[in-house]
Amino acid sequence: MTSQLVAGIEPPYYTAVFTSVRPDAPEGYAETAERMSELVSEIPGFLGYEVARSPGGIGITVAYFRDLEALDAWRLHAEHQAAKAYGREHWYDSYSVHIGKVERSYSFERE
Amino acid sequence: MTSQLVAGIEPPYYTAVFTSVRPDAPEGYAETAERMSELVSEIPGFLGYEVARSPGGIGITVAYFRDLEALDAWRLHAEHQAAKAYGREHWYDSYSVHIGKVERSYSFERE
Repeated sequence: MTSQLVAGIEPPYYTAVFTSVRPDAPEGYAETAERMSELVSEIPGFLGYEVARSPGGIGITVAYFRDLEALDAWRLHAEHQAAKAYGREHWYDSYSVHIGKVERSYSFERE
Repeated sequence: MTSQLVAGIEPPYYTAVFTSVRPDAPEGYAETAERMSELVSEIPGFLGYEVARSPGGIGITVAYFRDLEALDAWRLHAEHQAAKAYGREHWYDSYSVHIGKVERSYSFERE
């Protein structure tokens, strides 16, 4: 888990917001998450991701992509699709995915 | 903190993704967050929000709005602007805001 934000992306770009409810640390989750992190980094046009999870609460992952082609390449990746199917079966109580085009963004960094 | 996802919004709609790094539980933060939650709920076209924060790590808030007018009404709300200015001065090490238009979304709920 990093505490670095993905910053300084010039619009337009795409976000995939993944919000989920699941038990803390289900079996097999950490290994799959690590593997997905490796795989998504290989997608051309992938710009980074951030993840936060409140203990006992909601988890939110935001992944950033240069364009819809990059986002779809990840969405349709065979090993990613298999992991999602496994997650629906074994890990998640519920989740939502929101795919949006970012036209405006701004950042703040303490000097 | 709720464990309910905001689900079932029909596209198109807008998301404001707010990612931040700050110390855990800074002074005055909880009260202001509670007040902002009340205020944003009064904005016509506000559809809900979700928040997650990894202890010692990144926090992510995603707020959902029916259209850009609703989002801008919140963005430009005087008390919200004052809270943001206070947060930059006192709470946040860094943050980013990504404003996007959602054209596709899907949800999963375990039966």
